[in-house]
Amino acid sequence: MALIVHKYGGTSMGSVDRIRNVAARVAKWHRAGHRMIVVPSAMSGETNRLIALAKAIVPEPDPRELDMVACTGEQVSVGLLAVALKSLGVEAVSYCGWQVAVRTDSAFGKARITAIDTVRLDAALNEGKVVIVAGFQGVDPHANLTTLGRGGSDTSAVAIAAAVKASECLIYTDVDGVYTTDPRIVAEARRLERITFEEMLEMASLGSKVLQIRSVEFAGKYQVKTRVLSSLTPPEMDLEEEAASGTLITFEEEESMEQAVISGIAFNRDEAKITVTRVPDRPGVAYSILGPIAEANIDVDMIIQNQSQDGLTDFSFTVHRNEYERAMRVLREEVVSQIGARTLIGDAKIAKVSAVGIGMRSHVGIASLMFRTLSSEGINIQMISTSEIKISVVIEDKYMELAVRALHAAFGLDQPG
Amino acid sequence: MALIVHKYGGTSMGSVDRIRNVAARVAKWHRAGHRMIVVPSAMSGETNRLIALAKAIVPEPDPRELDMVACTGEQVSVGLLAVALKSLGVEAVSYCGWQVAVRTDSAFGKARITAIDTVRLDAALNEGKVVIVAGFQGVDPHANLTTLGRGGSDTSAVAIAAAVKASECLIYTDVDGVYTTDPRIVAEARRLERITFEEMLEMASLGSKVLQIRSVEFAGKYQVKTRVLSSLTPPEMDLEEEAASGTLITFEEEESMEQAVISGIAFNRDEAKITVTRVPDRPGVAYSILGPIAEANIDVDMIIQNQSQDGLTDFSFTVHRNEYERAMRVLREEVVSQIGARTLIGDAKIAKVSAVGIGMRSHVGIASLMFRTLSSEGINIQMISTSEIKISVVIEDKYMELAVRALHAAFGLDQPG
Repeated sequence: MALIVHKYGGTSMGSVDRIRNVAARVAKWHRAGHRMIVVPSAMSGETNRLIALAKAIVPEPDPRELDMVACTGEQVSVGLLAVALKSLGVEAVSYCGWQVAVRTDSAFGKARITAIDTVRLDAALNEGKVVIVAGFQGVDPHANLTTLGRGGSDTSAVAIAAAVKASECLIYTDVDGVYTTDPRIVAEARRLERITFEEMLEMASLGSKVLQIRSVEFAGKYQVKTRVLSSLTPPEMDLEEEAASGTLITFEEEESMEQAVISGIAFNRDEAKITVTRVPDRPGVAYSILGPIAEANIDVDMIIQNQSQDGLTDFSFTVHRNEYERAMRVLREEVVSQIGARTLIGDAKIAKVSAVGIGMRSHVGIASLMFRTLSSEGINIQMISTSEIKISVVIEDKYMELAVRALHAAFGLDQPG
Repeated sequence: MALIVHKYGGTSMGSVDRIRNVAARVAKWHRAGHRMIVVPSAMSGETNRLIALAKAIVPEPDPRELDMVACTGEQVSVGLLAVALKSLGVEAVSYCGWQVAVRTDSAFGKARITAIDTVRLDAALNEGKVVIVAGFQGVDPHANLTTLGRGGSDTSAVAIAAAVKASECLIYTDVDGVYTTDPRIVAEARRLERITFEEMLEMASLGSKVLQIRSVEFAGKYQVKTRVLSSLTPPEMDLEEEAASGTLITFEEEESMEQAVISGIAFNRDEAKITVTRVPDRPGVAYSILGPIAEANIDVDMIIQNQSQDGLTDFSFTVHRNEYERAMRVLREEVVSQIGARTLIGDAKIAKVSAVGIGMRSHVGIASLMFRTLSSEGINIQMISTSEIKISVVIEDKYMELAVRALHAAFGLDQPG
């Protein structure tokens, strides 16, 4: 009689038949005696359709109103899934984010969850109902509807699992787990049975699209046992087998496991690079560049500033490609001349490739192996950034696949561990 | 500086270009100095699409969950309209029913508005914003989402106009006013410049699809000056001219007007007739038949019970065709044998045709003219029902158009009044 959270992506909810399949799977878990909360995404294509409608009216729609429109996709999903469950004789009830309530800040389009009330969830669970909660959405302190950004339903699911202290959060998706890298690029990529929370965090932040990064942060912060598994198995699959499939995100490095040095190669083509050249190197200059960017609510990923020469330095950072134009505009209008920089250089044709592994902590030589491998393929490294368990490089985007394949082989990920 | 409510139907909101047109029209009113609340319907076809999705899962979806799904259409509309208005430089904000809040009972799919809070509306109006409120939807005392039934956005608009004490509620629709009858059936049908509230109530209840009947009831109860006018005129049309177009629903019989005896011929093919035959005629029998129907939340329109013979009587009533099968099932399972009735006869192939006019009060002979006209066309009358200002007959549905044309001519509606 565990309390379990299931999350289903847009593909799983993509048609009436697929929704019936989700309902059958959830019913199986419920009938096995589990208390169930289900968090579905919008039907595949629906969020894009809604956003395209708003953008057809004006290219940059008001963010509050865009959220008003975009969050309806999940509302439709929860209602349809409840209809499907009830048609199977399973008592179910659906809730929008605000009804639960999933409370967020007011950063429309990329809101953060601040709290989740559990009174209504607990009440419905205690009545034996399957509770279906709309992912991706919440409500701000002024009762405005908000959305959490792309992939936000993962975050909703993990945050709800944390709030209700669920035994496990199962993220059903169209891949069957977390791989050493994307199998579409490297045929030898292998599924990991387990991955540590920290590795998963790096993988997610580096563009592995399996889980939204904030869902991994939530999982880590609240120690939510989270599993990524396939939604493509038949709903009538043996429950024990299903429960052990996919990739489990763990919170301890297990002594018994022979720890690979590198767990995976992540990559990302979603970023753009911006360099402000010949900036006077004085205190506060980084803030004077990134302050206006932050105020415009643009997220920054890598930041590089080298040793200055002649009191001048080049300042580089990366942003999401979708925000590249806007970031360039902000810098042109509010920053470049004000700080006396010489020029502004932008490049959207970049890719970031990273080696991630908890084993890196205790091994030297990872960086040099990485740089040697890329060099021997003739790939120039534009930027480098490191953390305790990952090394990332920015390269020209046309070399991305080549770099991923070369690194996957060089770190021995092609062979079963 | 009047406070004005506009309501736009699904056709007016049917595409991005049309939404831009609505925004341009609203902007014109706002710039003329009016304080504006706008109530849009879902984009045309959207509500049907959503309901079809739910019904594809199971033919009779759970009503609460169906409302959860169905009310998203209007939410999309309000967001898109706000986006469009803001793109024209007009400050605007959209609200769902629950955000305002539009409070209703818990009769899912046909909820009734019980109260409308105006704090949030007033605050936004005082900030000079155009306030856009989703029609068709509300929230029940348990924070469940509800819908008001087909055409419910009219009711939302009029109820909101009543709550904020608006000067006028303008219902923009794809016809340019209320006609003596449907011009698609009678080419000579004429637009009425004014119609009394009571006539409009009868016209609406009798199937004239211009306004939902509950919106007319609200308009009457709270004396909301309501105008039905065309949404097909160009948005840049002269405002004074636009404000005087269409049909105004009035609350006084104006002495100065030469009052026509009959204002219009209404008709309705949406009903089905049910007769329980040979019912023992004892106290409580009507209740024992209609009680279970009411409990099943099925609305009944006409009710006929004739003088009994031999202590037995036939009991007939009409319901909406959509609820015909369900009503027959309720009667078969819970009523017929219990009350000792002989048989149950149903007929969905009927039409109701009605003559409506405030002038009928002071004129005799209307009924006889009506019956004579139908008789001379060879049309058999199956049921008759009357009110102070209307006479309705039920006939075989294939004669409906003929009956409407004959009556429109017989009552002199073909000639300009």
